[in-house]
Amino acid sequence: MKLIVKPIGLEAFGKSVVILNTDDAAELGTRSSGRVRLKGRDREITALVNTTSRIVKKGEVGVYQEVQSSLGLSSGELLDVDLSSPPPSLTHIRNRMEGRKLDRDQIAEIIRDTVRGDLSEIELSAFVTSLNTFHLDLDEATSLSIAMVESGKTLKLNSRPIVDKHSIGGIPGDKTTLVVVPIIAACGMTIPKTSSRAITSAAGSADRAEVLMPVDLEIDEVERVVEKTRGCVVWGGSMHLAPADDMFVQIEYPLSIDPLLLPSIISKKKAVGAEFVVIDIPLGMGAKVKTIADARLLARDFMELGKRLGMRIHCAITNGSQPVGHAIGPALEAKEALETLANRITVPDLIDKATDIAGMIIDMTGGVDGKRMAAAVMSQGKAEKKLREIIAEQGGDPEMKPEDIKIGEKTLDFQSVESGQVLWINSSRLVEAARLAGAPKDKGAGLILHKKTGDRVNEGERILSLYAEKTGKLEKARESLQQEHAVMVGHRTEMTMAMITEIPVHKEPFILER
Amino acid sequence: MKLIVKPIGLEAFGKSVVILNTDDAAELGTRSSGRVRLKGRDREITALVNTTSRIVKKGEVGVYQEVQSSLGLSSGELLDVDLSSPPPSLTHIRNRMEGRKLDRDQIAEIIRDTVRGDLSEIELSAFVTSLNTFHLDLDEATSLSIAMVESGKTLKLNSRPIVDKHSIGGIPGDKTTLVVVPIIAACGMTIPKTSSRAITSAAGSADRAEVLMPVDLEIDEVERVVEKTRGCVVWGGSMHLAPADDMFVQIEYPLSIDPLLLPSIISKKKAVGAEFVVIDIPLGMGAKVKTIADARLLARDFMELGKRLGMRIHCAITNGSQPVGHAIGPALEAKEALETLANRITVPDLIDKATDIAGMIIDMTGGVDGKRMAAAVMSQGKAEKKLREIIAEQGGDPEMKPEDIKIGEKTLDFQSVESGQVLWINSSRLVEAARLAGAPKDKGAGLILHKKTGDRVNEGERILSLYAEKTGKLEKARESLQQEHAVMVGHRTEMTMAMITEIPVHKEPFILER
Repeated sequence: MKLIVKPIGLEAFGKSVVILNTDDAAELGTRSSGRVRLKGRDREITALVNTTSRIVKKGEVGVYQEVQSSLGLSSGELLDVDLSSPPPSLTHIRNRMEGRKLDRDQIAEIIRDTVRGDLSEIELSAFVTSLNTFHLDLDEATSLSIAMVESGKTLKLNSRPIVDKHSIGGIPGDKTTLVVVPIIAACGMTIPKTSSRAITSAAGSADRAEVLMPVDLEIDEVERVVEKTRGCVVWGGSMHLAPADDMFVQIEYPLSIDPLLLPSIISKKKAVGAEFVVIDIPLGMGAKVKTIADARLLARDFMELGKRLGMRIHCAITNGSQPVGHAIGPALEAKEALETLANRITVPDLIDKATDIAGMIIDMTGGVDGKRMAAAVMSQGKAEKKLREIIAEQGGDPEMKPEDIKIGEKTLDFQSVESGQVLWINSSRLVEAARLAGAPKDKGAGLILHKKTGDRVNEGERILSLYAEKTGKLEKARESLQQEHAVMVGHRTEMTMAMITEIPVHKEPFILER
Repeated sequence: MKLIVKPIGLEAFGKSVVILNTDDAAELGTRSSGRVRLKGRDREITALVNTTSRIVKKGEVGVYQEVQSSLGLSSGELLDVDLSSPPPSLTHIRNRMEGRKLDRDQIAEIIRDTVRGDLSEIELSAFVTSLNTFHLDLDEATSLSIAMVESGKTLKLNSRPIVDKHSIGGIPGDKTTLVVVPIIAACGMTIPKTSSRAITSAAGSADRAEVLMPVDLEIDEVERVVEKTRGCVVWGGSMHLAPADDMFVQIEYPLSIDPLLLPSIISKKKAVGAEFVVIDIPLGMGAKVKTIADARLLARDFMELGKRLGMRIHCAITNGSQPVGHAIGPALEAKEALETLANRITVPDLIDKATDIAGMIIDMTGGVDGKRMAAAVMSQGKAEKKLREIIAEQGGDPEMKPEDIKIGEKTLDFQSVESGQVLWINSSRLVEAARLAGAPKDKGAGLILHKKTGDRVNEGERILSLYAEKTGKLEKARESLQQEHAVMVGHRTEMTMAMITEIPVHKEPFILER
């Protein structure tokens, strides 16, 4: 069927979509959510169909920008539109929905069609939902990791060994990466660290690093920085290492599910060429992983999956029951990390975690007593010096002092209404407050936790301080924390944590960090 | 956040959607697939978010037509846009994805938000996929049926008893409805038959009836027709009986799944006020239901569900191994039905099936020997007379003769290449051929099956004739049938149906008819 091209002037958010008049769609034998084959001058593509009885008249085909630019179409020209059968990847998705496992070729086809924009949100959602229901086995996770690497760009580096670290996320205030990367690079190993921005958290490692230096580097700039300094802390999103994963995140986010955790992380480690990797698995009530048994199972999967992709992986199961350090929010956290590296402050849990993980990397690559070596590199100021080299190469100011970091000027303290001990900290409430205060978008927003679990508190003593760039946001954060306390002060004998007297609405905080 | 309204000038296909600039979305703390609350002058609504860095500038909000007209927005005015939490129905969907059963209130919320356009395709797809994975139990099917009725319009009729029939579909050439409705109406019962158009088949009952009369009636016109004649055959789609179901079909169609079969059918029967219903469950290799045990289980579910909604239901398990009668395609089937009612031709399986189902309805409502009564009403010409009354009231020509029905003029015969017996008929191949020939859009397109299972065939004898309105389509249908035969002629001793020597691609024909 020949139809007159009518440009819609809008993006279809990465998908190939056309709008047909309902009559033309029926004539072709399709309908909304069906597919058509479009024959351009040089090439053919498949597009998803939406139908309308109004905007696009009979005889016209409405084309979104993806289709228009892919085929080089102009308004008014004739386009050959024919019925197309669904791609084989849709058959694989349907099989997966029935619980059948997919093989490497089938998964590669799904990933390829995902990246091309050939699968609709309906179809991708069914696929991701099926992965959530019938969990990935290791064969599938391997196939997905490989397909994701092959569908994206990879980092080419000459220095060896290439090492990496990754946290599965979910712990507020976890600025470990900013401390580990310079330690490792200062030890002479190559650590091309790509990080994510916050999706559901108050700050991702990329958001923290961005307070100190630009992080939106192209892949060749990253190669240059790393070859020169042995390290970097950049945002992975601008490097297109695993474009399929970015599309899956669009599905996972509204559904609050994260079935692609393993291949998502492992594919990105493979894409930067890592040979030795430490995966940090925070464990605890507020963390992604709640029991030590689950943490061990996950560690096993990571290690086995790494092996299949030719990477050596060790895992650190870390205490994830409360934030790391005191600061939450991009600028506050960057400042805490910089002060720690400069040996200006001592944040015991941050230093312990960072030197443990750096130590594991050192030991994996043949070093001895890695933790002590990591601590020495820090205390001698070599790590700070290395971070400043990286800052300089990434385009930041290597002379930046901690006090130069801009913190939100609107501020507010919370005092304890009783004396006692901090019994527990509700991390997800802290994240909510920090986000309401403006984080991660307002870099200076967030909070400082003055007391942590086990600390003694007197009535009227400051427990936490909120920071915001705008008064309205500070107020919203304040309201949220007043409604439900995030830091529980009491006595060791208080056993009841909550009394449930009505059927509760299921509202578990969801952490999606990549 | 106050943003300047920028109308997009497009529909979002029933959903409330806005486009935000990526920066504004981050400032609000949301991203693509998130939600915002829009405060208009008189009312507030929630909208789904898409983000862009191009089309919509910082400070603007792109609004699709649904949002624009719902809030009465003009270009350039300021609109209050704030972060919104997801609706509770999304929490219910997430619970359903984990396999938890939903209660009546939860399902009602999902249906309400579906009809309002408050749930995205991603979310609806996850819901429908979860219903496909963890099958509906009867409590959920009941809740869904009730919620679907309450979300739509209902037919108000005075005459009693109100009866109905419904086939779960999947059998090509099944024009039983066109014969049963006039028999039942002629017996003095009220049968307000709403039918579907073809989605994946060659003709739906509404497509067949449309050859004889208009079927796109408004709900008050249907009431008038039925009060006057006791019957009708109309398209359910224009009556908005279960608008949620129409939205679920958009999800089920690309995924080739049909988990809402029971509530979809039962809600529409309830919405027309039916008290006694016969459900036709075709059984056989090419049908939706493959085994007698499955058919009995489905019958049990229909009957129990009907009871819970205050309807008496009987089920007919019918032979679905081949088409009903000889004709496939809207006009060919309408003609076959009209000739049958006029006693001009004898189509044994059609007459047997129609009188069985009509007889069951008669017996259910207190009649005796219903099948004989149904046959008598037919043979005395009362059913034909009644159909012509209905045709007249629906706005068709009551004098229409079978030979007035326009059949496709491009035609082609297939002859048998050997002598023997028809061993089996592949219904889905026939549907494919009829659709390629132009059905259901080209009403005159389709085919006539001259031989059916068990019939003796001589070499060179005509097996089937194709009809099309356009030569190109006739050719495509011909190619398809030449590639793979739809009618297997052989000898009773030939046991092997197919030899599989390569791993086959899973390509089961999918039947979605509502």
